Amino acid sequence: MDIQIKKYQGKMEYSYTLGAFPTIELLKNKPEKVIKVFVHPDMDSVQQKEIVASLCRKHNIPFEVSKKNVEKLRDKENCLLIGIFEKYEDDLESDNNHIVLVNPSDMGNMGTILRTAVGFGVNNIAVIEPCVDYFNPKVIRSSMGACFQANIKRFSDFSQYKKEYDNRVLYPFMLKGAVDLQKFDREKTQKYSLIFGNEATGLPDDFAQEGQSILIRHENTIDSLNLSMAVGIALYEFTK
Amino acid sequence: MDIQIKKYQGKMEYSYTLGAFPTIELLKNKPEKVIKVFVHPDMDSVQQKEIVASLCRKHNIPFEVSKKNVEKLRDKENCLLIGIFEKYEDDLESDNNHIVLVNPSDMGNMGTILRTAVGFGVNNIAVIEPCVDYFNPKVIRSSMGACFQANIKRFSDFSQYKKEYDNRVLYPFMLKGAVDLQKFDREKTQKYSLIFGNEATGLPDDFAQEGQSILIRHENTIDSLNLSMAVGIALYEFTK
Repeated sequence: MDIQIKKYQGKMEYSYTLGAFPTIELLKNKPEKVIKVFVHPDMDSVQQKEIVASLCRKHNIPFEVSKKNVEKLRDKENCLLIGIFEKYEDDLESDNNHIVLVNPSDMGNMGTILRTAVGFGVNNIAVIEPCVDYFNPKVIRSSMGACFQANIKRFSDFSQYKKEYDNRVLYPFMLKGAVDLQKFDREKTQKYSLIFGNEATGLPDDFAQEGQSILIRHENTIDSLNLSMAVGIALYEFTK
Repeated sequence: MDIQIKKYQGKMEYSYTLGAFPTIELLKNKPEKVIKVFVHPDMDSVQQKEIVASLCRKHNIPFEVSKKNVEKLRDKENCLLIGIFEKYEDDLESDNNHIVLVNPSDMGNMGTILRTAVGFGVNNIAVIEPCVDYFNPKVIRSSMGACFQANIKRFSDFSQYKKEYDNRVLYPFMLKGAVDLQKFDREKTQKYSLIFGNEATGLPDDFAQEGQSILIRHENTIDSLNLSMAVGIALYEFTK
């Protein structure tokens, strides 16, 4: 792969982890995808530097001190460590629970959802296109590197997802959902997929026909909950 | 008040709503604080423009078409409506539930928390300094204007808050919390305050002595939940 040290663009075959925290998560979880790690000479956390150096040694990954390259790639002054990794495709585990995000468009939300999903042990995420570029360094940072513990797979439309993973109960979350999450006693033996729509538009009405639609009740003082908030609350309730 | 049309700075006595949605929320909820509204000549949503114009007429607020001023103040090209309002101080309702944020530092989190809190009907928010500037237009946008429905009050330290509002049960949320939110059966007659720490550091250990400390359990695959996520899940559970 031809690597050029320049700011991230979606069409590249590689991406970056900006900062120590996501770089360490990358090295721990996807070492086989890491191409190179750059450290800035000003980095003074000996502990973090040693963790990174030792992971790089273990996996035979080039670890290079480079003021110039770090400063070229970073977007914030306090970023002193950068990983470069090859993008990859995951498969979802069919015998596990999923989250399905239909047309997510906000990078911060995407990262927060990945972090929360991994935190609640639902590590398989289907994403229906068009969707945000989840390899964008902003998504990675907002996930605190938890993205490297998740399996994420893209689908061109929902029917393709449903065909491939047909062994589960579907729960679309909608403002017009038929049952209230707080009062809902779900069937606990089957695997499930929690389905969420776009930040601005939510799920199209016809998702009400897919499985059991659910509503997270809130006061009508606001239009809707933030998308990542809705996913987090659903995960909290479903993983009880 | 001397108003200069220039980008927002924390020391100003006024702030801005950037965009139609937060400007409409401002006009609906705090019309007495609005100094002026600017609309860009390119704005083509007749419906939104009419809502704003009519609210301005009703409250005697200057409503001015100004390409130059909108373009000077906005941070995104698609922002075509801007409100200017005088900053204000709220009091908290002592006979209602509160959220207490100790040293919140992230503007996006602050906005999301305000939106979610209003959505779950807990509209009284105490903020312990040092803290993010909650009048920053980025906080306002991230709250979708819900900030204008909340009562927000600043305190120099937690003991000052506790002294002023001493009629309630305190629930500090901590990774070392003594009880698990999922298993916790709270006392339902008394008013409560849900207390959360800073994004990076959480609450200091001595908060474990303040009331009943609570843990939101998650896998150890992540360090912690995002702050706004923790607040949202707590609100969901407490307002059941």
